[in-house]
Amino acid sequence: MDLAHMKSELSKRLSTGRYNHVLRVTETAMRLATLHDVSVKKAEQAALFHDIAKCMDPTSLRILMIENKVDERLFLFHHELWHASVGALIAESEFNVKDTEILNAIKYHTTGRAGMSKLEKIIYVADMTEPERNFPGVEELRELAIDNLEVAMEACIRHSVQFLVKKGVPVFPDSIDCYNEHVMKRGIVN
Amino acid sequence: MDLAHMKSELSKRLSTGRYNHVLRVTETAMRLATLHDVSVKKAEQAALFHDIAKCMDPTSLRILMIENKVDERLFLFHHELWHASVGALIAESEFNVKDTEILNAIKYHTTGRAGMSKLEKIIYVADMTEPERNFPGVEELRELAIDNLEVAMEACIRHSVQFLVKKGVPVFPDSIDCYNEHVMKRGIVN
Repeated sequence: MDLAHMKSELSKRLSTGRYNHVLRVTETAMRLATLHDVSVKKAEQAALFHDIAKCMDPTSLRILMIENKVDERLFLFHHELWHASVGALIAESEFNVKDTEILNAIKYHTTGRAGMSKLEKIIYVADMTEPERNFPGVEELRELAIDNLEVAMEACIRHSVQFLVKKGVPVFPDSIDCYNEHVMKRGIVN
Repeated sequence: MDLAHMKSELSKRLSTGRYNHVLRVTETAMRLATLHDVSVKKAEQAALFHDIAKCMDPTSLRILMIENKVDERLFLFHHELWHASVGALIAESEFNVKDTEILNAIKYHTTGRAGMSKLEKIIYVADMTEPERNFPGVEELRELAIDNLEVAMEACIRHSVQFLVKKGVPVFPDSIDCYNEHVMKRGIVN
């Protein structure tokens, strides 16, 4: 992977604001990877690619999704969710990324899912806590991300689901599976 | 259906508090059925049966669930959810209830689901808004239940999901499907 080429491609495909967000997520993800014993190289690649389809229009996203037979449930949900799956498709088809771990980290960075790898969690958490994110509670999430990736992931997915439900907008089933898996780890007494 | 026999059976199987709750839900459900053009007789039966398994211990519930091959996902969730499916089993096997609409209203009264019938919604909403329910917002739900069953159901499932997520406890997937179906009806712009 030629990083200079990659960044030049990103800057062509993304708005300046989005491009700078990607660089901040990449820096955050690489720092978290070092702390939590995950390949820094993989974290860098996954983070650089995670939003590569973010500035595409819904129609173009939809065409790629249909052609590549992505999870059909996505069509029922807001197109805001689509760029993650399409990002993974573009990383593979246009940039020859073959590492499934990296592709999944791109694919699930918006919804989360049950059974996430450490790399997937790092990208999810880095995306939510990069330095310019600014919402009530983000500082606590940042601290958790440094201390304990697992606990940080639970806090992040809880925050996301709570945000959506409070707004009264749909929640993609993978996000609830992810939320359930994490809160269940704390144990249910039957 | 011999109502006197049914009530005597209920009073044997339920605590006094629970039995009285069932009578209040039945009265509420019958009133809502009249208002929203649903069979009052069916609403009465479904409401009387809805909590028939509520006071059973988790082990007995589990045995019946295994024997009758209920949705296996339920075993991963709190046993609080189990009484609804088992209630429907008991209504059918011990009381010879064969009406699928009534059985489904019993079965889904705790989780909700996508594609609920009007009778299912009436039992769900009546259970949540019977006169002794006392939580912030219940009065608004009661008014909605009278005015518009559809809007009341959406408000009730939103309230339930929000309550669970705020507490940080698992949400059964059927409840999210129900929530998503209702909030999506208001339209997503792609």
